[in-house]
Amino acid sequence: MAADPKFLSYVDEHQADYIKRLSKAVSIASVSGNLRWASFQVKPVAIKNLSLTTDIHIHSYVKDVEAMGDFLMEQLANLGVTAEKRQIGTHILEGKEVDLPPVIIGQIGNDPKKKTLLIYGHYDVQPALKEDGWLYPPFELTPDPSGSGRLYGRGSTDDKGPVMGWLNVLEAHKNLGLELPVNLKMCFEGMEENGSTNLDKFIESEKDKFFAGADCMCISDNYWLDTKTPCLTYGLRGINYYEIKISGPDRDLHSGVFGGTVHEPMTDLISIMSKLVTPAGEILIPGIKELIAPVTNDERAKFEAIHFEMSDIHAAVGGDVTLSEDTVTTLMGRMRNPSLSLHGIEGAFSAPGSKTVIPCSVKGKFSIRLVPNLTIKSVTDYVVKFVQDEFAKLGSKNKVDVYLTHGGEPWIADPNHYSYRAAHKATESVYGQAPDYTREGGSIPVTLDFANILGLNVLLLPVGRGDDGAHSTNEKIDTDNYIRGTKLLGTYMYELAATKE
Amino acid sequence: MAADPKFLSYVDEHQADYIKRLSKAVSIASVSGNLRWASFQVKPVAIKNLSLTTDIHIHSYVKDVEAMGDFLMEQLANLGVTAEKRQIGTHILEGKEVDLPPVIIGQIGNDPKKKTLLIYGHYDVQPALKEDGWLYPPFELTPDPSGSGRLYGRGSTDDKGPVMGWLNVLEAHKNLGLELPVNLKMCFEGMEENGSTNLDKFIESEKDKFFAGADCMCISDNYWLDTKTPCLTYGLRGINYYEIKISGPDRDLHSGVFGGTVHEPMTDLISIMSKLVTPAGEILIPGIKELIAPVTNDERAKFEAIHFEMSDIHAAVGGDVTLSEDTVTTLMGRMRNPSLSLHGIEGAFSAPGSKTVIPCSVKGKFSIRLVPNLTIKSVTDYVVKFVQDEFAKLGSKNKVDVYLTHGGEPWIADPNHYSYRAAHKATESVYGQAPDYTREGGSIPVTLDFANILGLNVLLLPVGRGDDGAHSTNEKIDTDNYIRGTKLLGTYMYELAATKE
Repeated sequence: MAADPKFLSYVDEHQADYIKRLSKAVSIASVSGNLRWASFQVKPVAIKNLSLTTDIHIHSYVKDVEAMGDFLMEQLANLGVTAEKRQIGTHILEGKEVDLPPVIIGQIGNDPKKKTLLIYGHYDVQPALKEDGWLYPPFELTPDPSGSGRLYGRGSTDDKGPVMGWLNVLEAHKNLGLELPVNLKMCFEGMEENGSTNLDKFIESEKDKFFAGADCMCISDNYWLDTKTPCLTYGLRGINYYEIKISGPDRDLHSGVFGGTVHEPMTDLISIMSKLVTPAGEILIPGIKELIAPVTNDERAKFEAIHFEMSDIHAAVGGDVTLSEDTVTTLMGRMRNPSLSLHGIEGAFSAPGSKTVIPCSVKGKFSIRLVPNLTIKSVTDYVVKFVQDEFAKLGSKNKVDVYLTHGGEPWIADPNHYSYRAAHKATESVYGQAPDYTREGGSIPVTLDFANILGLNVLLLPVGRGDDGAHSTNEKIDTDNYIRGTKLLGTYMYELAATKE
Repeated sequence: MAADPKFLSYVDEHQADYIKRLSKAVSIASVSGNLRWASFQVKPVAIKNLSLTTDIHIHSYVKDVEAMGDFLMEQLANLGVTAEKRQIGTHILEGKEVDLPPVIIGQIGNDPKKKTLLIYGHYDVQPALKEDGWLYPPFELTPDPSGSGRLYGRGSTDDKGPVMGWLNVLEAHKNLGLELPVNLKMCFEGMEENGSTNLDKFIESEKDKFFAGADCMCISDNYWLDTKTPCLTYGLRGINYYEIKISGPDRDLHSGVFGGTVHEPMTDLISIMSKLVTPAGEILIPGIKELIAPVTNDERAKFEAIHFEMSDIHAAVGGDVTLSEDTVTTLMGRMRNPSLSLHGIEGAFSAPGSKTVIPCSVKGKFSIRLVPNLTIKSVTDYVVKFVQDEFAKLGSKNKVDVYLTHGGEPWIADPNHYSYRAAHKATESVYGQAPDYTREGGSIPVTLDFANILGLNVLLLPVGRGDDGAHSTNEKIDTDNYIRGTKLLGTYMYELAATKE
């Protein structure tokens, strides 16, 4: 069922209003990861024969997150949604106990003959300071003066743009007097950029209450693979993050005095880290490769159909440093195979310059991206055994400890589920082309929480492009993506209502 | 020739005066590595609903270094030394161009029938702040209240104690009306703790002027190997410090998005670093081992005679993590064999916590301690070739660069030279035992400058003990070492005058 043409026309005619809505949302600096911003600026003022003074700026982000929740509540109420703020506990932010940002839940429509769609978004954002390298003030939505249509601002694409997209859909229907084709349940959180603390508990506690009756779920919190091709995302890699701690002496030593006399923890650590993965990216820990699920024909076909050139990844990383020359191998390396990255070492010398230290205790950090059928536990068992065995071979008198610091399981959805089929049709209708079927190499933990706790098919339906720069300086959303994204979300509702289970 | 007994009695009778002299010297915070100390202390004072204020402290170290030079000049003049301050240029300290601390040169005695001894010391010190963990204010010489005789204070042992020791010797002779048995030339610098900038140029320029006619040289700027046994130090290891830079992508990458698709610089770097040295300390770079000078019987005998137990090194490093169980192997590992230490990595993740970054460019840092007959150049040639060859084997598309960041040649003196024989006798006379013959595992670059430019035998004659904590918090000198050290320096002059070349 195509979307109501009046809805599509309304969206086209109200672009300016929609940008104003996003502009208002971006203007609220709802940074969930900081308590406040305080800076001391040193300016040249004479004090005796030295030049020094201070200039204090303070800004409370906690109040901004609260204000953003209030803004969302007000918008939802105006659009006919029955919404509630739910407190989900407290947390420690920069040493101070503060309330967690509330989860906002809402419902519109309750027709048993219609499907019920659950949508999720988040109203908090990553930190951003102009001096980090932003072209424009990060909390003022700024159209690119060159007329490219880019709208710069923190949260423009992650995730205020998509959230405002849903509000735009509701506004159009309300003002046109159109009935929604599905029942909508909504869950918006203000803590996504800071770990989604307690959201899993909230979902669990509301599983048979607020969330009861949802048929499927849609989350718009990721991005196209490239800048041109809309996509549906049906998988996420998980991650196991590890530390290998090696300690020996009880204090840092001078390499002049002790080099050549003691077992150096760094030497042991580097030796062990070198045995985890080859420079060609092959994971050397026995047992892990054998866990990878075999590739099905359908899967391979979906990878082969993805619009992707090697030049895309060369541009994204700034040069040809790819392991493979082949697009399908590269895409599968990113999306459906495990990978092991060595992130760094804590406790060793890491500053510019030269320091002749033998660090007494060092922690090597690495992570393994998980794919079906690797699990947190199975991989950890292999990692711990391997590191301990290899360390024993070194004959060192130092001590080793290896442990998981956090783990997230991989996730995969059925890309042939009716919700995906509906999104496929909606994409064809709005963009005039079939979507790519992608998986994300990274993790989006809330997806797993919803999918696993509620037992729902989750569709990841991105609105923004691959170069939007979520979490970066100069985050942007293209006006075309914002406006067509609004149409896409609305059209998806109509297709979902029409698609047979 | 034994020291004049009146000199030895005078020293015993003037201990309190000598401690006062050291106390005055320590009270001048002559830190050469900092321009000034400024701290902002945040204290709780209400500003609206936030608590914040500042408290500014400023201290100019540059003036203190200058004041210490003036103190030394005044003392020398009072003791009959013809002394001069010599400006040796400027340098940049914390972004500001300031004069280098002056070199102070002095001469007393010019009898062609006497030997001429050149002595060196430095009047600057390492930084020290009470809050770093000092028991007492670092710039107030504080006797241990328990009566152990320890005198705590920055510079007490490094190097104001030994420098004051020489002044004590001069004072005794002046006040007793005793003639010095040798001519003395002195060179004191105020930049030792900050790289001895331009001292080499100064020595070169004064080689045939001020320094002409010196027969041998004595430097007291190192320490006993243990806390009980006086020693003479006749060798220093050199050091070559290297960086291996590996770069590929032009920006840091997210391991979720790019892990499994690109050559990761960290993986390449860890692989190369693991090939440099074994966990047992064996250097794997071909060619280096072959350069080590063979051990002579005299050398081995000197190592075997050193007072050293494995428990000494276990105590020093805080546990049994030694490569060997044998004292001679351990001492030679420290003093006469090369060693390779991996210090750390710049550019990788090094903070506590978990960050899923693929760093785009990383620098691995390591150093090799040099011994005869390794040279800066020969070792560097081997290192560069080895790293480049091993990198080529990786088949990585990243780029490698390996380079020496600084180098210092090793140094060895003839321990059977008459200056050493004199110091041997002086030690037996003052301490009632023969000294150990040690080498330092670390480098003291000024030693090489004097030895190589002036072509002199240099005797390193330590005054303080191995646990004095030069450069650490709670630096100390034992009263007994300070007083007997004064006798040692004086007696050495007498023995030097009497010993046949």
